[in-house]
Amino acid sequence: MTEPTKQHRVVVVGGGFGGLEVARELRGAPVDVTLVDRRNFHLFQPLLYQVATGELSPANIAAPLRAIFRRQKNCQVLLGEVTGFDVDRRRVLLRDGELDYDSLVVAAGSTHSYFGHNEWESHAPGLKSVEDATRMRKKILLAFEAAEREPDPERRRAWLTFVLVGGGPTGVELAGALSEIARHTFRKDFRHIDPAEANIIIVEAADKPLHVYSDHLAGKASEALRQLGVEVRTRTKVVDIQEDHVVLESEEGHETLPTRTVLWTAGVAASPLGRLLADATDATTDRIGRVQVEPDLTLPGHPDLFVIGDLAHCADKDGRPLPGLAPVAIQQGSYVADVIASRLQNKPAPPPFTYKDHGSMAVIGRYAAIARVGRFELSGLFAWLLWLMLHLMEITLFQNRLLVLIQWGWAYFFRSRAARLITGPVEPLVETGDASREEVPQTPVEAGS
Amino acid sequence: MTEPTKQHRVVVVGGGFGGLEVARELRGAPVDVTLVDRRNFHLFQPLLYQVATGELSPANIAAPLRAIFRRQKNCQVLLGEVTGFDVDRRRVLLRDGELDYDSLVVAAGSTHSYFGHNEWESHAPGLKSVEDATRMRKKILLAFEAAEREPDPERRRAWLTFVLVGGGPTGVELAGALSEIARHTFRKDFRHIDPAEANIIIVEAADKPLHVYSDHLAGKASEALRQLGVEVRTRTKVVDIQEDHVVLESEEGHETLPTRTVLWTAGVAASPLGRLLADATDATTDRIGRVQVEPDLTLPGHPDLFVIGDLAHCADKDGRPLPGLAPVAIQQGSYVADVIASRLQNKPAPPPFTYKDHGSMAVIGRYAAIARVGRFELSGLFAWLLWLMLHLMEITLFQNRLLVLIQWGWAYFFRSRAARLITGPVEPLVETGDASREEVPQTPVEAGS
Repeated sequence: MTEPTKQHRVVVVGGGFGGLEVARELRGAPVDVTLVDRRNFHLFQPLLYQVATGELSPANIAAPLRAIFRRQKNCQVLLGEVTGFDVDRRRVLLRDGELDYDSLVVAAGSTHSYFGHNEWESHAPGLKSVEDATRMRKKILLAFEAAEREPDPERRRAWLTFVLVGGGPTGVELAGALSEIARHTFRKDFRHIDPAEANIIIVEAADKPLHVYSDHLAGKASEALRQLGVEVRTRTKVVDIQEDHVVLESEEGHETLPTRTVLWTAGVAASPLGRLLADATDATTDRIGRVQVEPDLTLPGHPDLFVIGDLAHCADKDGRPLPGLAPVAIQQGSYVADVIASRLQNKPAPPPFTYKDHGSMAVIGRYAAIARVGRFELSGLFAWLLWLMLHLMEITLFQNRLLVLIQWGWAYFFRSRAARLITGPVEPLVETGDASREEVPQTPVEAGS
Repeated sequence: MTEPTKQHRVVVVGGGFGGLEVARELRGAPVDVTLVDRRNFHLFQPLLYQVATGELSPANIAAPLRAIFRRQKNCQVLLGEVTGFDVDRRRVLLRDGELDYDSLVVAAGSTHSYFGHNEWESHAPGLKSVEDATRMRKKILLAFEAAEREPDPERRRAWLTFVLVGGGPTGVELAGALSEIARHTFRKDFRHIDPAEANIIIVEAADKPLHVYSDHLAGKASEALRQLGVEVRTRTKVVDIQEDHVVLESEEGHETLPTRTVLWTAGVAASPLGRLLADATDATTDRIGRVQVEPDLTLPGHPDLFVIGDLAHCADKDGRPLPGLAPVAIQQGSYVADVIASRLQNKPAPPPFTYKDHGSMAVIGRYAAIARVGRFELSGLFAWLLWLMLHLMEITLFQNRLLVLIQWGWAYFFRSRAARLITGPVEPLVETGDASREEVPQTPVEAGS
């Protein structure tokens, strides 16, 4: 199978932040890298919520993998879906083929989890892929369209009620962007509703939103959300989601809240490839399906097999798993490339992986963000400018950087959103009785004034 | 039903070039305008082929209808699907409601037609909507991905053969853009194929492509296509389309051409609303379903009912129907607004509609286009610059104009295409036998050189 003249073959599964970094950092090493991904692009996930709210187009936050690796001669990109692993024969199984490896790096990321309530998915879309984002965008935009058409005040209110499950960064970012849309972008766009009357509600099980931050910063975030008109319900859980309502549970008991738009930002589960990998290697997975890795990010007994990023359960020095953040995946990718290159050069193995936490940040809305940079804490305009700068720097291709800057500038200063397209089939907006059709209100509300 | 205080109600069906113009030109008139469309955006269709080839994002060529009419107080936008007309009660029937009108303007446009072979649609997508364009983009990009994975030379060649049915402007524009992708954008992106070996073939039943132009200009276009490596088969018809081949018919007989990618730019049919309208009014439709209109664009016996744009069969002074072009629809929209406003002011009716033909143009590729401006004919770089200028001026919203300019500039000068995303589910690229999986070629072709 393996000819003696062949180079050491590295197969990287997943073109997210971690996988990309491994492949790039191996550019000078005597290896043949194959990066395999189901998608033909790398997605800048931290800005996905801006696609869901019509500020950016999918292409603004996606970079074709082939374009990224165009000049890296020792790396080939393969569009394919991994279906399993044959670790004895050192092969990755694809839906339509197989790949031999000498070193394997699995960086397949995570997906959203409905805590065992998969039936909620049809009513409450999550936000992990481009398709998720355009589906969420469609759901949000159609809710305003339906409210405009709905003559019944109660049903109209349900269309204008947006419930975000989860008060983490994505939930907070989405809530802030939704508030922008409702209060500014749509201000003059409708004739029968006032979009500013939209209710935007974050439901969070913990006692504060963004609870991984300090009390000080989380308090700043809560205050910023209040100013944006976003209601935050803490110590509250969602116990049921239906097409036209959610049921919330808190200390005060149960409450049924009429709403037509529930957005899911709560649960995370590791890619199902983690389970397949664990079965193939006798590795263990944690509660959310992440694979337990050794201090050098390999699997126990399999020094040629690495797992990184959201798929890896990698303990920090206190024994807690590292969070599923892009910087963790990137540092792990760089580390693994270093381990592989060191082995080929017969150099001593690098010391165990440690995560250098330079800080983290969350954006809340127009000019509002919170940031922790080492020991420093920032909030407000400065934090927002820092967020803007870092995200612009990180976006992979220059063209997108420029386009995103223009699009952001436009959206922030003129409060318009160009990418608010409803694509795909649309169901009837208004429920009609069987007997007769309802007459649509036609006289513009403002026309007479 | 109608209260005496109500203004004259104008319902416009369709937010394309024609419908948009009617609604805009009525901005000063004492009317209540309702613009109803299935989509929430106006689409700049002349650039749709650039979405299909990954140069532009859908949002770059779409403008939200609500944003366009934000400041026009006498116009409301309604997202809804028209299902019929009750002309006696003067009502437009929607899937989920009804709309009263005093004047009705139907500008529902056209769709593609497979000349009675609707079974071809699944193999040969057309190009009329955003979804069509992203579907076509996916098909084109996946063909290159599959070719990269395909070890069998004959099957690889079928993946690299692109057949465009129809040598009109869309077919020629698509062929030129495909040639750009294959020869330049993808030049260094693959390791096992040379994308420049792609065969791009236009199949045209007439004796030349772009046959509505003069022999001189059509000859220039043919020459430009040849330079781009595009093969043009004239006097040739497609008689069958299957998943892995097409059957062509010409004077020399039948030929079976193996191909995995057939793109349909040939036939046009009027919106099915034309048929419904004709049934409701005893108007007649022509061969492709367009409604025959009076010289003032009304239907016979229905002076309150106008049909414009691609849906109208409107004869020119020689009795031939006007072509389905944006300028025709725009001039007709402006004319109808004038007729309605004149009636309300009890002014004499404007003279019958006449189309002022200022010229037309088609773009072939990088810096190559043909244009007829009045009596003048242009080709090459000057025609291309004219095309660029006019299309930029016409794009509706300023933000998009700037973004499109940057994206075009980038694509033309650096020959990169950022919007080449494959979205939606992907089938296995390689046909695998039941018995065994094929090994994927892993050693990069160029790595050893």
